[in-house]
Amino acid sequence: MEQLAIGIDLGGTNLKGVIINESGESRHLTRIRTNAEKGGDHVLESILTMIDSLIQKEGSKENIIGVGIGTPGFVDQDGTVIGGAENLPGWKGTQLYAPIKDKFGLKAVAANDVTVTAYAEWKYGAGQGVSNMVCFALGTGIGGGIVIDNKLYKGTHGMAGELGHIVVETNGFPCKCGQSGCVEQYASGKGIVNVARKVAKEMASDNTPFVEYVNSNPEDLGAKSLYKNFVEIDNPDPVGWKMHETVCDMLARAIGFALNTLAPDKVVLGGGVMKSGKIMLEGISKFVPRYCWPAILERCEIVTAALGEDAGVLGSGAMVFGEKNCA
Amino acid sequence: MEQLAIGIDLGGTNLKGVIINESGESRHLTRIRTNAEKGGDHVLESILTMIDSLIQKEGSKENIIGVGIGTPGFVDQDGTVIGGAENLPGWKGTQLYAPIKDKFGLKAVAANDVTVTAYAEWKYGAGQGVSNMVCFALGTGIGGGIVIDNKLYKGTHGMAGELGHIVVETNGFPCKCGQSGCVEQYASGKGIVNVARKVAKEMASDNTPFVEYVNSNPEDLGAKSLYKNFVEIDNPDPVGWKMHETVCDMLARAIGFALNTLAPDKVVLGGGVMKSGKIMLEGISKFVPRYCWPAILERCEIVTAALGEDAGVLGSGAMVFGEKNCA
Repeated sequence: MEQLAIGIDLGGTNLKGVIINESGESRHLTRIRTNAEKGGDHVLESILTMIDSLIQKEGSKENIIGVGIGTPGFVDQDGTVIGGAENLPGWKGTQLYAPIKDKFGLKAVAANDVTVTAYAEWKYGAGQGVSNMVCFALGTGIGGGIVIDNKLYKGTHGMAGELGHIVVETNGFPCKCGQSGCVEQYASGKGIVNVARKVAKEMASDNTPFVEYVNSNPEDLGAKSLYKNFVEIDNPDPVGWKMHETVCDMLARAIGFALNTLAPDKVVLGGGVMKSGKIMLEGISKFVPRYCWPAILERCEIVTAALGEDAGVLGSGAMVFGEKNCA
Repeated sequence: MEQLAIGIDLGGTNLKGVIINESGESRHLTRIRTNAEKGGDHVLESILTMIDSLIQKEGSKENIIGVGIGTPGFVDQDGTVIGGAENLPGWKGTQLYAPIKDKFGLKAVAANDVTVTAYAEWKYGAGQGVSNMVCFALGTGIGGGIVIDNKLYKGTHGMAGELGHIVVETNGFPCKCGQSGCVEQYASGKGIVNVARKVAKEMASDNTPFVEYVNSNPEDLGAKSLYKNFVEIDNPDPVGWKMHETVCDMLARAIGFALNTLAPDKVVLGGGVMKSGKIMLEGISKFVPRYCWPAILERCEIVTAALGEDAGVLGSGAMVFGEKNCA
């Protein structure tokens, strides 16, 4: 009998659900609006309705062994959201496991939305085949996920993997978390814009097209267009290139710390920033050796993520199979 | 039938062995000189002789389920020392598991000497009762060990936990590892002396007893006496206090990075530097909140190590019980 799991991926905008088997084959992928502004109770109700609908589509819950949920924020061991989900008003304090057990008789397991994406990369994507993996998700912010000895590592209270808040620069850019110099302030989409503004100011006298453009303070200054117009071209703008090297240097520091601490077999880099994958990997490879032990780096591969935007919902489902194997 | 393990702790100076049960009760503790200068083959022979002697003392190997070894350097999954043991000439390349299996029919498991000390703290010392723990050993250098989900985390090639080489200061003190600003250069015994020289130079005009003493370049400048004479006194020397706060700040950064990455339940701080435990813990507590997420710190306790100098040999033996529980 083929075992199945339900995967749920909760985001600030969309709620997704799917049924998958352990090989990662999925069906009945469903996506609705989260309507986060309607509050935590509404969101929970939407999740329960989606689970019900997926069971209906499957025709039976006989083969379904559990429900995995990826959610913004931190989920404690008992399935309670204990914080860190500011984009979902009223979500903090929600108990996720009990209503699923009550309504469907199914075991639930939940984790941070970035953590489940990392898990999907390990099980079905760029991290396949290794025992120990660290994943950085470089999007608007930076999140992370860690697989240790073939198992998702969440930390006792679901808080492990806050890799975006590794401090990489003494007295660096202030971060909303209260620290200064977090890697998120340098190598996320927003961070790249921070770096662009800084180098354009410092090197204003160079007066390159990049400097002119950035210092004219366009409202829509974005990492993607900065890379496209000034870095990923045949003759990169020298100040734009300085931005790129600063971003890679800072990211390399965070990767180096993760390497020295965890000595993983692979580091997987995903998220929107890695759409400039080749040039980012080249830049990072230049700087990482400065920030970690050669013997550790020799045994670690740094790669771009392989899965697309459905990684979260697949990883959520995959957790159900992961949890059954080893306590 | 009570299960027993043999623990072996190999150091540059001494080789120790013991028989323990899973509760940590030990007997037949033996210590001989390593005689590292005689080479790797001699050291391996000494280990085999010690195992034989422990079995003789026990009277039978019937209840002994395996041998655990703590050694300087990194041990790969197959039991080969693959590097990092510079104080043991000819030790690199030594295969540890096969000769123990051949000679005694016993399963062996090996790990870095600091890693096994951390494991002992988790199983029998200050880390008891938690699932996830990070240990910093603050001695002449800084080493570390990590317990994840109630299991020692070694990394695929035995290299996890190089916490001494987390970079805490951009363009900081150069380190023999090739990086700059490693925490080992600030908060180990040697690192504290580095910091003392730096603050005494920068604040030379303050002309305090600490400044005079340090700038007179005594040959025997040591962390212990600096703390004893200038910090751990009723009216601490102001420049000596600056040294202390710098040391604690730097150590707090490394602890903060470990917290953001791993969200452990406990951080255990051991080694000679922590003989000034109370004042170090107070100093660290002041700075750690600057370098990690409040929600993570709230759920983590920072404590001093509880075990003495036999932690290594106990942890080595304890690994044998740990490995049998979960693959």
